[in-house]
Amino acid sequence: MKAVSIKEPGGPEVLEWIEAEDPSPAAGEVVIDVVAAALNRADVMQRWGLYPLPPGTSPYPGLEVSGRISAIGQGVTGRQLGDEVCALLTGGGYAQKVAVPAGQLLTVPKGIGLVEAAGLPEAAATVWSNLVMTARLEEGETLLVHGGAGGVGTMAVQIAKALGARVVTTVGSAEKAAGARELGADVTIDYRTQDFTEHGPYDVVLDVIGGQYLERNIRPLAHDGRLVVIGLQDGLEGQLNLAELVFKRASVHGTTLRTRSARAKAAIVAQVQNEVWPMIENGVVELVVDRTLPMAEAAEAHRLMEAGQHTGKILLVND
Amino acid sequence: MKAVSIKEPGGPEVLEWIEAEDPSPAAGEVVIDVVAAALNRADVMQRWGLYPLPPGTSPYPGLEVSGRISAIGQGVTGRQLGDEVCALLTGGGYAQKVAVPAGQLLTVPKGIGLVEAAGLPEAAATVWSNLVMTARLEEGETLLVHGGAGGVGTMAVQIAKALGARVVTTVGSAEKAAGARELGADVTIDYRTQDFTEHGPYDVVLDVIGGQYLERNIRPLAHDGRLVVIGLQDGLEGQLNLAELVFKRASVHGTTLRTRSARAKAAIVAQVQNEVWPMIENGVVELVVDRTLPMAEAAEAHRLMEAGQHTGKILLVND
Repeated sequence: MKAVSIKEPGGPEVLEWIEAEDPSPAAGEVVIDVVAAALNRADVMQRWGLYPLPPGTSPYPGLEVSGRISAIGQGVTGRQLGDEVCALLTGGGYAQKVAVPAGQLLTVPKGIGLVEAAGLPEAAATVWSNLVMTARLEEGETLLVHGGAGGVGTMAVQIAKALGARVVTTVGSAEKAAGARELGADVTIDYRTQDFTEHGPYDVVLDVIGGQYLERNIRPLAHDGRLVVIGLQDGLEGQLNLAELVFKRASVHGTTLRTRSARAKAAIVAQVQNEVWPMIENGVVELVVDRTLPMAEAAEAHRLMEAGQHTGKILLVND
Repeated sequence: MKAVSIKEPGGPEVLEWIEAEDPSPAAGEVVIDVVAAALNRADVMQRWGLYPLPPGTSPYPGLEVSGRISAIGQGVTGRQLGDEVCALLTGGGYAQKVAVPAGQLLTVPKGIGLVEAAGLPEAAATVWSNLVMTARLEEGETLLVHGGAGGVGTMAVQIAKALGARVVTTVGSAEKAAGARELGADVTIDYRTQDFTEHGPYDVVLDVIGGQYLERNIRPLAHDGRLVVIGLQDGLEGQLNLAELVFKRASVHGTTLRTRSARAKAAIVAQVQNEVWPMIENGVVELVVDRTLPMAEAAEAHRLMEAGQHTGKILLVND
């Protein structure tokens, strides 16, 4: 098969479309012939050499794919060769084939094309696990989502609205603000000209920025508020006002999907299949795709993501 | 009645035993004729003027008392004049009488004297709400408790052992270490000569120190670990390593009992009555009392607490 290799840590130019060894399925795994993979911010971090990979992870980037099952390992039940699926991965999605534990497979939702389905698993699992399983967002609460135009952001706005929450989101342009409002956001804040700390109080904040945002996220948090940090675009450390945290009985949660065990991932994927897939099939939650490029042009796709002008998912497609 | 008043923010000498107005019970409240009150670190913070009081709180310090019901407000059922009780308060315990919502009353556990019972509600409610309701400490997990000789610490060590956890605790002397081991601590760490970050990993850390301990508490935290900060003796802010938090999927919770609603306090008190009181009545959890002083000597009691030489609760008794 061919795969996108990271020659060395660096800019988009280090991504190379190389000849690689075919994966074979371990017990409990299937191999997917990849139709499409979707980009995530973590792929960029991995390319820069900033993302410590869990042991045993494929060296190729890619946290989610769609495709057809082409091999089935021992002990896997309920899956057939040729099944069209999408999957949450620990890595290896930028390739023609990838092996994945069967518990991380999802059906392709009705009404979604096989290519587009590649853009669902990571964002849906990230949003569901963080907003519902970690932050326990409830109907009537107010959520602040940073980056409401991104892959996770567009999904978070819609799932939170489907759960009955009031949604505030930060965006970087008037066009992105309009897009977020179309997805259901109640309030959009242009972070270049407005201060999100002046709004609130927020019961839950979903943050992909980290760094100096830590202090700014805690300030407008409501009593019993939950800040969930899932990205660190602004830096790895921040100042925490413990007095405010204690006084408000608030909490800060750091989470990542990738380092979770296969068993924990399967538990999240099962909830996503049961709770989020119906929202997608009913049209309550819409998948936002920015554009599609050939898998061999992964470097160009990374350039687009780092430029930050996209709205929704960027997909890489095999011929 | 008489009560201990804080003349102005300052050292122990600002506490005065003054003539004060008798409280009367609002709807849903009872008045307790106070037999004893117990000291908490928050009383010292309040005396220094560092603890913002929730609206409507009594100006007199004191978060827990024991005594006899001397008046019953409208709508209170199941309580009789003369009933011996102890209670979790939002304030006002350093007095001859105090009004309290009926939901914050507890029975006096069998085998515990009425004076000693004053030392149970705050520590038991703090430990139960934080270790079980917030941190969800589970059997087989490892807990680090800072200050294992204090009122909260002695209770935390014993309740955690009763729940089947492994318990590590920091102490400030060999005598306190021996005391903590007698209460069931598996490992004691003298914080003056040993480094608690070299032990671990800890699934749950219960911290009363704050400040610079934030960074040191996160470092030895286990994957999926929970740090619960309930005190800020070292400072109100700290540096938070978000990358470590995210990578470990860990969380930092700030909590305080005092600012919770009467309804939330009643929910905690109900669990304490059902879950912790049997541990006390069966002798699995022992109340540790350092000493008893007359209520009029509250200033001396505060001096003792600030000197930090005590083990367990310091009680103030009315004649």
